[in-house]
Amino acid sequence: MSDESLRLAGIEVRGHSVGGLETFIRLPELGLCFDIGRAPESSLSTELVLFTHSHIDHLGGVSSHAASRALRGMGPPTYVVPPPIAPGLQDLLEVWRGLDGANLPCKIVPLGPGDELTIKGRRVVRPFPAHHFGAAQGYVVWDAREKLLPELAGLSGDEIKARREAGEPVTARIETPLVAFTGDSRIDVLDVEPVLYQAKLLILEVTFLDDRVTVESAREKGHVHLDEVIERADRFQNEAILMTHFSARYNRRQVREILAERLPASLAERVTPLLNHFS
Amino acid sequence: MSDESLRLAGIEVRGHSVGGLETFIRLPELGLCFDIGRAPESSLSTELVLFTHSHIDHLGGVSSHAASRALRGMGPPTYVVPPPIAPGLQDLLEVWRGLDGANLPCKIVPLGPGDELTIKGRRVVRPFPAHHFGAAQGYVVWDAREKLLPELAGLSGDEIKARREAGEPVTARIETPLVAFTGDSRIDVLDVEPVLYQAKLLILEVTFLDDRVTVESAREKGHVHLDEVIERADRFQNEAILMTHFSARYNRRQVREILAERLPASLAERVTPLLNHFS
Repeated sequence: MSDESLRLAGIEVRGHSVGGLETFIRLPELGLCFDIGRAPESSLSTELVLFTHSHIDHLGGVSSHAASRALRGMGPPTYVVPPPIAPGLQDLLEVWRGLDGANLPCKIVPLGPGDELTIKGRRVVRPFPAHHFGAAQGYVVWDAREKLLPELAGLSGDEIKARREAGEPVTARIETPLVAFTGDSRIDVLDVEPVLYQAKLLILEVTFLDDRVTVESAREKGHVHLDEVIERADRFQNEAILMTHFSARYNRRQVREILAERLPASLAERVTPLLNHFS
Repeated sequence: MSDESLRLAGIEVRGHSVGGLETFIRLPELGLCFDIGRAPESSLSTELVLFTHSHIDHLGGVSSHAASRALRGMGPPTYVVPPPIAPGLQDLLEVWRGLDGANLPCKIVPLGPGDELTIKGRRVVRPFPAHHFGAAQGYVVWDAREKLLPELAGLSGDEIKARREAGEPVTARIETPLVAFTGDSRIDVLDVEPVLYQAKLLILEVTFLDDRVTVESAREKGHVHLDEVIERADRFQNEAILMTHFSARYNRRQVREILAERLPASLAERVTPLLNHFS
């Protein structure tokens, strides 16, 4: 039942995402996942979940995740959510506490655009608004490193140490966008958040791939159409792009064939489709 | 991702059941399933769900099931539940309607011990009390057939037809227990409901299999221990017994080995363990 593991831009990615059914994307090395649509067993080991919006195929597994972790004696998970969703999530857990009889221990962290959360590995999570349904948001995980000031690059280790001990600044904080996850969104999010084009790994929803659904209809549903990605092909500077959330109307072979036919070479060499759970 | 299919006592059984994690047992030919812990895609085609109790590993997939069926244009499902659970289930769906924005159309049917529900294929579902948590119950699915009265067995077709046309009774309703599902329960349920020993197919939870958990502890948790089944070995008249809901502490090999070692031959030949989702 385990998902095939991918390694993209040096980052391990697991999970699956089928439009309308279930999204769960896990980055084990970063110790987090995006959304838990159904709470598969492979989600239980992840303590930090960044939820993008409150559609049931993205948030639907939250109560089972909390319950199964508690039953297995794992620590309370942390659920980062768009702030407007937090009260509804509290209500949901409360109803389940009544039904199940368990405590469902967990920490709910409302975190909206403009907020940030420092996580393990000197990384910072920042949400950005998505264009989908209600309070939808995506996330950028930034690598925050202390780097030697460029003007000190020629100095020896001893000289740098002496300056540090004298109280002089020798490093500056450098942030680089490691992973960006759009969640469900119209493509407009790329135009508003240029960092998405720069993240080392971009995880991009591309629900519709061909004429079976028009660009207009994709936009009405709050989703990305492949035509819109191709229009922007020259802008992506990402080392790797993981395309996710394909409509369940496609199978693996169709996704692969359509991407091979339609993507320009400059994109094709960096794009990987997430096909776990597709037949 | 599909579960291996079993055929027991002539009845197809699909699904999986891991103690504390997820129970979902589907009888495709009967058009129903017992419990939906996580709402896998394979649950969506089933319109009639008989829920045994409100622990999240048995009821947790209900909202996702309703939502995914609606999204795919399938008809509203019917959820049969112990009557005391119905208000909590309504609350749950209401919270989800607020979070998700969807209608989650479904029909909730409170059905308790003493009630019955006629389903397709001239079958009747009757709940019985289980001994577990809150308003837990199991279900027996009965085959209801009109059979020729025994005293008419020697008559010709024309004679029987003549009697029927004259308004005389020529058939009687005969009910036979086709499938019994205990849900989660202490073994006491077998002693109280003798029909469980007679159903053609008995689906029996046997959560604990050996000394790692004592009989006393199993009983405290409201579950069956294999020791208790073995004590009753002579009473089972079932054509087939499907053992389910093993604790996640066991793997496939261990379950098979323990059953092979411990079950008396008269039971072993009729017992099948449900091992889908076990490693």
